[in-house]
Amino acid sequence: MLNVLTPDETLKLIQREFSHIAPIRETVELSRAVGRVLYEDVEATEYVPGFDRSTVDGYAVRAADTFGCSDAVPAILEIAGKVLMGEAADITIREGQCCAVPTGGALPMGADSVVMIEYAEDYGDGTVGIGKAAAPGQNVIFKGDDVFPGKTVLKKGRRLSSQDIGALAAIGKARVSVAKKPRIAIISTGDELVSPAEIPGAGQVRDVNGAMLYAMLTSFGAEPVELGIIKDDEDELRRAVSRAAESCDGVLLSGGSSVGERDAAAKVIGGLGELLLHGIAMKPGKPTIMGRVFGKPVIGLPGHPVAVYFVSRVVVLPLLGFFTGLDMPRYTVAAELGESVSANHGRAQYHCVRLAKEQDKLIAHPIRSKSGLITTLAGADGYFSIPRDCEGLQKGAIIQVTLWGEE
Amino acid sequence: MLNVLTPDETLKLIQREFSHIAPIRETVELSRAVGRVLYEDVEATEYVPGFDRSTVDGYAVRAADTFGCSDAVPAILEIAGKVLMGEAADITIREGQCCAVPTGGALPMGADSVVMIEYAEDYGDGTVGIGKAAAPGQNVIFKGDDVFPGKTVLKKGRRLSSQDIGALAAIGKARVSVAKKPRIAIISTGDELVSPAEIPGAGQVRDVNGAMLYAMLTSFGAEPVELGIIKDDEDELRRAVSRAAESCDGVLLSGGSSVGERDAAAKVIGGLGELLLHGIAMKPGKPTIMGRVFGKPVIGLPGHPVAVYFVSRVVVLPLLGFFTGLDMPRYTVAAELGESVSANHGRAQYHCVRLAKEQDKLIAHPIRSKSGLITTLAGADGYFSIPRDCEGLQKGAIIQVTLWGEE
Repeated sequence: MLNVLTPDETLKLIQREFSHIAPIRETVELSRAVGRVLYEDVEATEYVPGFDRSTVDGYAVRAADTFGCSDAVPAILEIAGKVLMGEAADITIREGQCCAVPTGGALPMGADSVVMIEYAEDYGDGTVGIGKAAAPGQNVIFKGDDVFPGKTVLKKGRRLSSQDIGALAAIGKARVSVAKKPRIAIISTGDELVSPAEIPGAGQVRDVNGAMLYAMLTSFGAEPVELGIIKDDEDELRRAVSRAAESCDGVLLSGGSSVGERDAAAKVIGGLGELLLHGIAMKPGKPTIMGRVFGKPVIGLPGHPVAVYFVSRVVVLPLLGFFTGLDMPRYTVAAELGESVSANHGRAQYHCVRLAKEQDKLIAHPIRSKSGLITTLAGADGYFSIPRDCEGLQKGAIIQVTLWGEE
Repeated sequence: MLNVLTPDETLKLIQREFSHIAPIRETVELSRAVGRVLYEDVEATEYVPGFDRSTVDGYAVRAADTFGCSDAVPAILEIAGKVLMGEAADITIREGQCCAVPTGGALPMGADSVVMIEYAEDYGDGTVGIGKAAAPGQNVIFKGDDVFPGKTVLKKGRRLSSQDIGALAAIGKARVSVAKKPRIAIISTGDELVSPAEIPGAGQVRDVNGAMLYAMLTSFGAEPVELGIIKDDEDELRRAVSRAAESCDGVLLSGGSSVGERDAAAKVIGGLGELLLHGIAMKPGKPTIMGRVFGKPVIGLPGHPVAVYFVSRVVVLPLLGFFTGLDMPRYTVAAELGESVSANHGRAQYHCVRLAKEQDKLIAHPIRSKSGLITTLAGADGYFSIPRDCEGLQKGAIIQVTLWGEE
């Protein structure tokens, strides 16, 4: 008989059994890569910018020619020419000369700084008066200031944000190597289940977990594969799990909260492969099982949607990390607990909360509910957990709330 | 001449000029609806659960029959039958009787609670001994506990999370009405621009904003329409903006940070429609213009990617809210400022930060950079802003960091 493990022990088990899973490379078009996980470190192969550029509209000068000038005593410089946007600066300025440059234009040779147009007066006779001294380097981005060859711009395992897409565009990565999305099969089990589109008959309920897991896997960066509802029949379940493990990278079963169903799922996983876990000491989520079939992870989630939700975040999300190499920091929001919460000794306890700003403080109101109520989740903004050795938390305690949001 | 507005005044202007824009309904399949914005309030039309259900494996009983029992003196009850999963409970239990029920099974008539199997002993002669008294309602979810007809389950304007998808499945919404994604045109302008796939020649740079705005609009829940790079030619720009405003719901121009280019864009917008804004008092982001062409909003963003990023979050995101009706609370993370930051009087200032956990405190390290460096954004975890009337913040000050992340 396998023991019930704590959430931390479960994560260690996953690390031991599945950390050999490695990301597979896939190349996608840059603008479609947002949200995908980078497969490899990206190094620049060129300079960005590729030339010295002005950051303002004005006159490129030799800074030394402007030292000591002022509104009252402007430095008079000869206009040697004008740089056009998108063209090379084929001008060299010598002592006493300057050159008109637009924002983003190339700095002409000989110049080391740019005076803003606001501080210059064009006398109309081929000269300008500069009313403010420039420091060398002023209003200029130099070649390679942003990126230079060999610089690591982004590290592998990063989930690409919009800004990262911008950085990749800047260094000419029109296509980018990302981790292939793992294909994860979803099987809902239970004689009582009908699809959301059907009207439940006597004793029947709609399958909530299938659609919710589809959405969660999408948010987690996986490719969900819907295999529908399987009746509580060991042979049928064995065929379904076997087919799923053959064609996908992992399998999620949901349902089977009754002792008989759980035992059947455990038997199927054990028969086809190896059972690794029989229960997690967390609330909700205890009746979770895990195993390996044809080398692929198979997780038997509980039937209650709220339990499915928490086990998916605590267990499935880290497991998927092996497929993508995702290296993502998690942040929480500190909030004040709105009412006291007692804890269940011996099991880590997860609570949904609603957040509200009250007199400049962020208050977390725990949502009380019976097990299995899906509307508990739908109305909440996030959750917090109470460790298994904690007896509860008082109203006013500062807790760390993990926000929902698409991780 | 139009005045430069503060970020708050800009938002008020947007509210005044564009709040008449209303979401358009679109119906999508439930599991594909994650991340979409709900078009209307969703009310339940049935009870969930549709019948009284057991939350454990055990025996349905009349609680009164178990009062006073204990391990030592069990209550002996006659087994009246067994409820099967997915079937109606066609059994009525009378005084002194009980009925086996699985987790999720229907409660038979006459029963008001369920005793867990752990507290019952099957004597094998048609009776069980109950070792623990049940309270009425114990281990039962009653019909309609979760949802009842007329209950508002989710409110319009909510961005659908995975949990919401679960709730919609529970009440039988196999298809859901969401706001149609607004089609937003992206036009990059500038003689110096080449596409990310090209090698820039002398004086040229790659178009960073096109790909970044595509990714940002995707994350914001819009449908980006790439119209490519337009040279700095007023006639060409006029044709492009006119075509874009005709075929899309809004237009984003990027580039044109030099005075001449900005004036050309302002002239084009003013000529085709009406110019509403000529500059925002924020840093970065000042040279932003906004107007209306054929009734559609047209925003002329600066050329620098960092400025484009902040203006998109501060101005474009709220504007898109009118198209989707999105009603989303925003949360920030409190962090300690890692070094002092001086502020620029008269303009609200936006700073990128890198977050690090140091001795249990979250430290925000501001990223120093020259204007226009895209790698500033790519390495950061979020940002904070300093109001225009603040002279700066000292190291150790507690700031509110808005995290990147897909809003």
